[in-house]
Amino acid sequence: MSLDIRVILVEPMYQGNVGSVARAMKNFGYTDLVLVNPCKLEGEARAMSSHARDVLERARITSTLEEAVKGADLRIGTTGVTSLKTGEHIRLPLYTPRELKEKFKGYSGTIALLFGREDNGFSNDELKSFDMLITIPTSEIYPIMNLSHAVAVVLYELSDLEGGNNPLADGFDLQLLYEHLEKLLEEIDYRPHKRDKTFLMLRRILGRAGLTPREVQTLRGVIRGIERKMGYPLKESGGQEPKISESMERFI
Amino acid sequence: MSLDIRVILVEPMYQGNVGSVARAMKNFGYTDLVLVNPCKLEGEARAMSSHARDVLERARITSTLEEAVKGADLRIGTTGVTSLKTGEHIRLPLYTPRELKEKFKGYSGTIALLFGREDNGFSNDELKSFDMLITIPTSEIYPIMNLSHAVAVVLYELSDLEGGNNPLADGFDLQLLYEHLEKLLEEIDYRPHKRDKTFLMLRRILGRAGLTPREVQTLRGVIRGIERKMGYPLKESGGQEPKISESMERFI
Repeated sequence: MSLDIRVILVEPMYQGNVGSVARAMKNFGYTDLVLVNPCKLEGEARAMSSHARDVLERARITSTLEEAVKGADLRIGTTGVTSLKTGEHIRLPLYTPRELKEKFKGYSGTIALLFGREDNGFSNDELKSFDMLITIPTSEIYPIMNLSHAVAVVLYELSDLEGGNNPLADGFDLQLLYEHLEKLLEEIDYRPHKRDKTFLMLRRILGRAGLTPREVQTLRGVIRGIERKMGYPLKESGGQEPKISESMERFI
Repeated sequence: MSLDIRVILVEPMYQGNVGSVARAMKNFGYTDLVLVNPCKLEGEARAMSSHARDVLERARITSTLEEAVKGADLRIGTTGVTSLKTGEHIRLPLYTPRELKEKFKGYSGTIALLFGREDNGFSNDELKSFDMLITIPTSEIYPIMNLSHAVAVVLYELSDLEGGNNPLADGFDLQLLYEHLEKLLEEIDYRPHKRDKTFLMLRRILGRAGLTPREVQTLRGVIRGIERKMGYPLKESGGQEPKISESMERFI
């Protein structure tokens, strides 16, 4: 069982950076590169990829972030800390690459590592869709790293991450759990102006917890139980109600 | 008391790399850059340095490696592992950046981190002059990193190195100790064909030990004591013979 890493660059602007990222990936043994709406990739990208031209040429190109993350179990966004003041809750909590490594020791599955645009990083909507955010600890005086340097540093840190037998829940099932939770917040008339923030917090808690498939099913069963007790009609039928397992204690 | 890091690039060939190195340094809070016989530094170097143009412009340029390391207490060379078969003893032992960090926790002084040419790295004579060698663990399939990526990864790793109150011995005194040891090997008629290798081994042992000023003086006193007993005339006069301190036990 192994933990696979996919590197996703969202709308990279400079082809030299894309080539350099391919090189850094191959240096640390990674080959799964996806580019969302990239700039033109020509001679400079190939030159900077050096002996990782194969990684560059095999990169998948997509037009949306959703396509790029398809099949991955978790979405980890890498972000600078400069714009922490605006939309702070969207960018918190932030973990270091080392903490990411420690959290996912012993898992199997596919983690998507996302890197934003060279100038503007990620949009708030993109940030909200990530399960966990990491940032590289840098100097306050000049925290903005070159894109390929950031990729190199994160992959360096993760390159001795040891996978294991704990499967990560399927990304698709995790999204269903999130939607279910969002619906639950509506059903309990959670204060509308706090709803988004609270939902994001729940999502990030569950994202970084590294849920297994069984845990996701159990959590959904609990939510169904709550809905039933509240008198909401159950939309899903025929689903067996899972027992609350000891793993629940981590979340409630 | 702090542990200062100086980055030395030996004969860098591409100005874009030099600029990128300046940026990576500033990202992690370092500013002391020395360039030994660099390529021309023009617009591309400045462009790649981005907001670290001050680091690039304040870089010292020297014509020899000896000038570049002046004032530094230890010389740490960064090397790829590709040419390990030829001249193996010159490249061993190799430590990881993390091991380097662990060894020098709690020290104060100046460490020179040396990075070689993009194509050929370091010459054997340069490698022999280093106190310790580090290498970044990379994929065997493509181990050769871009120069600025290598700098970024090493500085990332060292950026949370905590200095302390243990002063590193002055680099000049350390060189005198090494010369003294080399002379001792001659004096005891150490097998000439093994002498170089053994001297290099002793040097690397003492280099990575992170000797304090007192330890260097004590070691030199011991060597003087051995010379005296063997009947060699002492070249230095007036020096008080240091007592053998408990710190000696680390080395003999």
